Amino acid sequence: MIETDILIIGAGPTGLFTVFEAGLLKLRCHLIDALAQPGGQCSEIYPKKPIYDIPAYPEILAGDLTEKLLEQGKQFQPGFTLGERAETIDKQDDGTFIVTTNKGTKHKAPVVAIAGGLGSFEPRKPKIDNLAQFEDNGVEYMIKEPELYRDKDVVIAGGGDSALDWSIFLTDVAKSVTLIHRRNEFRGALDSVEKVQELKNLGKINLITPAEVKGILGDDKVTGVVVEQKDKEPFIIDTDHFIPLFGLAPKLGPIGNWGLEIEKNAIKVDNSLDYQTNIPGIYAIGDVNTYPGKLKLILCGFHEATLMCQSAYKRIFPDKKYVMKYTTVGGVEGFDGTKKEAPKAVVKAIN
Amino acid sequence: MIETDILIIGAGPTGLFTVFEAGLLKLRCHLIDALAQPGGQCSEIYPKKPIYDIPAYPEILAGDLTEKLLEQGKQFQPGFTLGERAETIDKQDDGTFIVTTNKGTKHKAPVVAIAGGLGSFEPRKPKIDNLAQFEDNGVEYMIKEPELYRDKDVVIAGGGDSALDWSIFLTDVAKSVTLIHRRNEFRGALDSVEKVQELKNLGKINLITPAEVKGILGDDKVTGVVVEQKDKEPFIIDTDHFIPLFGLAPKLGPIGNWGLEIEKNAIKVDNSLDYQTNIPGIYAIGDVNTYPGKLKLILCGFHEATLMCQSAYKRIFPDKKYVMKYTTVGGVEGFDGTKKEAPKAVVKAIN
Repeated sequence: MIETDILIIGAGPTGLFTVFEAGLLKLRCHLIDALAQPGGQCSEIYPKKPIYDIPAYPEILAGDLTEKLLEQGKQFQPGFTLGERAETIDKQDDGTFIVTTNKGTKHKAPVVAIAGGLGSFEPRKPKIDNLAQFEDNGVEYMIKEPELYRDKDVVIAGGGDSALDWSIFLTDVAKSVTLIHRRNEFRGALDSVEKVQELKNLGKINLITPAEVKGILGDDKVTGVVVEQKDKEPFIIDTDHFIPLFGLAPKLGPIGNWGLEIEKNAIKVDNSLDYQTNIPGIYAIGDVNTYPGKLKLILCGFHEATLMCQSAYKRIFPDKKYVMKYTTVGGVEGFDGTKKEAPKAVVKAIN
Repeated sequence: MIETDILIIGAGPTGLFTVFEAGLLKLRCHLIDALAQPGGQCSEIYPKKPIYDIPAYPEILAGDLTEKLLEQGKQFQPGFTLGERAETIDKQDDGTFIVTTNKGTKHKAPVVAIAGGLGSFEPRKPKIDNLAQFEDNGVEYMIKEPELYRDKDVVIAGGGDSALDWSIFLTDVAKSVTLIHRRNEFRGALDSVEKVQELKNLGKINLITPAEVKGILGDDKVTGVVVEQKDKEPFIIDTDHFIPLFGLAPKLGPIGNWGLEIEKNAIKVDNSLDYQTNIPGIYAIGDVNTYPGKLKLILCGFHEATLMCQSAYKRIFPDKKYVMKYTTVGGVEGFDGTKKEAPKAVVKAIN
């Protein structure tokens, strides 16, 4: 059982900044995220794209934003349960909550902060009858560990950046790479499209377009796929892996069944006070929440996280009074023993 | 008469970020500030001090924060009325407001956003009977234009960074610099204290401690000051200028008489919606406002400014519907003709 002060569901920008604000209040945080790395959409969907409306950043790449937030919170030593989805929540008699993931990991905390963004990002899957039976047995919707494909035959399907970039990357790892797309045209960064063209010309990527994978062969593991290409008879490609990269779609998912008041696929909160949900002790912050005038902007999540932490503090320590100190005046004391503070003025006689 | 869409009272971080958020909505802004430069406290009080709780900045100097915010908003071409204090507000029959400064400059706008921080920073003044009659006639509480002191005799009073730094700076400008402090000990950056010691040893700063200026001599302009030094008879120093630098203290000031609901020296707003005050069309954002759970943090001002701009848009264009576009998707179009946007994906066949 992992125990913490504030259990954060979602390790996107709002969740990551919560670690920092909670740390200033000497509260510890642990984050659960279905994705394999922190940063949420910023890391998974558009790490190389610029954001222009983070205050005081005229421009910052989404991936760099994640790095900066991780750095800002690191002295508060957050814990992470990554690649697992928060599945169930149980309120204990002592008022604390136990959150269990789809892989059975249990977490206990007096306060739960849902910073789930638009939900957990689930891969879009192709319509193939026996697809489900090969999941994790040769069919993967995300590439988490490239070494899995070392010296294997790999078939990738898709026509966007993800399909292009992983096809390029795996040419140095896999025995063979086949890229299948239902159109001749790919949509992605110019660099990536040109690189795939070059690798195709060199015979390092086997390109099949316009075509679709319509069936999977194998007993307990994938051994091949059935491909339908325009103006041709269906044919078989022998392969160890089939990786459809059709993008990710957000789904509120299991959180939707936690008894929280939901409106327009978002969790209703009390914005007039502390962004608490209808269940005391559970807060919702960032894009996952809704209230009158709500804007789904990262900078709003930062504010909501900050006010939420104050309320969480009062819930955890009902008898203590917290007096806010400005970081410029009081510095930042990490749980790891570090201290950041402004250079102190000297008091010194001049003779 | 200066006309704009959103008239912002206060050019601190919250006011400056409002320019950017308003610009995304194609609304123009004009800022009024009593200080001579934008940035509020960050520029005037602690430009060289680090802030640790600006989201995604593990550390940023307050002066650099101001620079970043100015850069982020510059394509929206904000107007500035600096060194003047917003004094009166008059609501017109057409629902717009006219705000007049202490120097008589008039501004007209349908929306007023008070981003006044802790108020306008007023200099702390020494208790000297005839002080007021010499204000702007040889007595100055802030140094706005150093050239004013070229080849003049200058007496500075104070024991903090401001007194130290300006004494150092003016040795290269003034005919003579005298620094008077009521203690022997100065409180400031080590560098500054050591530099003053060095200039004193070189005879470039005339240091008189522990001592106080108790009187001012002159008819219409300052010609000298009366100094009381410990264990000595009072004596006179001939000087053209007397500059007491005893720090600044915030005062809500004239805004307190605008008919706004005030609580604990701050303006009450409706935080459940749009940070509007009790007078429709007048908003209060940042440290100047109060509501349940309010935290006087810069990052909260950023959020409040953003939600306020949406409400201002509806007030200015009641019949238009604004659909928010993410800057990563839609880019940022400046009023100066510039456009920032993410590199577009290409759609390209691979043959």
